[in-house]
Amino acid sequence: MNKRVQVGKKILSANEEYAQRNRQLLSQQKKVCLNMISSPGSGKTSILARTVGELKDKMGIGVIEGDIQTELDAERIRTAGAVAVQINTEGACHLSAAQVNTALHKLPLEKLDLIIIENVGNLVCPSAFELGEDGKIAVLSVAEGDDKPVKYPALFSKSKVLLINKIDLLDSGALVDFDVDKVKADARKLNEQIEIFCISAKTGKGMNDWYDWLVHVAKIRT
Amino acid sequence: MNKRVQVGKKILSANEEYAQRNRQLLSQQKKVCLNMISSPGSGKTSILARTVGELKDKMGIGVIEGDIQTELDAERIRTAGAVAVQINTEGACHLSAAQVNTALHKLPLEKLDLIIIENVGNLVCPSAFELGEDGKIAVLSVAEGDDKPVKYPALFSKSKVLLINKIDLLDSGALVDFDVDKVKADARKLNEQIEIFCISAKTGKGMNDWYDWLVHVAKIRT
Repeated sequence: MNKRVQVGKKILSANEEYAQRNRQLLSQQKKVCLNMISSPGSGKTSILARTVGELKDKMGIGVIEGDIQTELDAERIRTAGAVAVQINTEGACHLSAAQVNTALHKLPLEKLDLIIIENVGNLVCPSAFELGEDGKIAVLSVAEGDDKPVKYPALFSKSKVLLINKIDLLDSGALVDFDVDKVKADARKLNEQIEIFCISAKTGKGMNDWYDWLVHVAKIRT
Repeated sequence: MNKRVQVGKKILSANEEYAQRNRQLLSQQKKVCLNMISSPGSGKTSILARTVGELKDKMGIGVIEGDIQTELDAERIRTAGAVAVQINTEGACHLSAAQVNTALHKLPLEKLDLIIIENVGNLVCPSAFELGEDGKIAVLSVAEGDDKPVKYPALFSKSKVLLINKIDLLDSGALVDFDVDKVKADARKLNEQIEIFCISAKTGKGMNDWYDWLVHVAKIRT
């Protein structure tokens, strides 16, 4: 039993060591880094593609795309106009700080204001692994249901921002049961400071407040 | 490095040992067991609640509910009319065969024809841990997007059935991009034998074919 605990400690420390290196690199370069986490299909890549398209003339955004397989997401981000590095975890359920360290060295950091990491689609594991980021961004689509903060509290309790995405579905006449006020209240019970934006990456509704927040955050180190 | 591999092997064997015990128990009792896996919010509990409600007079279904926290899902299943045992993993991202072994001993197996395990909402990790089940059921909601089989191939390549849920959204006028034929083709590229049913747990559309499959499968041991 003791042996198992030790192994767990070693794995966490190896990740923490790289997370610390990433923090130092980002701090030296005066860059801000965010770690976006959600279930598969909540719309992370669509949010990033639209965000990059809208903000590319105002600031330099670099994206690190984490996926189990495929380069599809990095290609979408490049099409939208930002530099993107794809990490394929080949089965692993979360990004590690070492993988992010390699990716950071592939990005033209000197040209960027903000680095956004899109983690592997997984509402559970990625929130347990620090990558050296300045903050986590949780994304929840209204199609996933309004019980998620209560059932998966770890991510919501650790995130700086919650993006409630696909709010266009609530106005569409589709049969989607999602009580926005309940989710806000449940998320704030876990995390008083969390900023919450209701958005649709598809229609653009609510995105301006998110952009304003990003522009503000990207300046905290400069 | 060798040491790490050994530890990995030991953990897998411990799970495999319990999975084997579960297989023996289910075989002795002539019960069929399915392991339902998906992202959070794809509709696993809604599918099970409707299925239990429709089939409870035809067959005895017992449900093992896996969640990180809360007893919400087991309560929904009990309300629908089936016996349900809740497992709270307290942070773990998948059910283990040992947890399922404990739960199986809490179910009145002699009164049941079929046991369905609802795994923790996670499209990645649960598919790597055998629980002693006769087959895996993958669930994908159309709101998650049609790139999921390509991006998360492990589950789709191992499942007996794929339930494409929330198809009511495709008819609702909501802005949902989901090419059903593409998902079917991508899933079948990974797994020629996979059975695919397009359903709406909300409206009931397409559910009869799923019920027929379940009734057929529940009889394979009797």
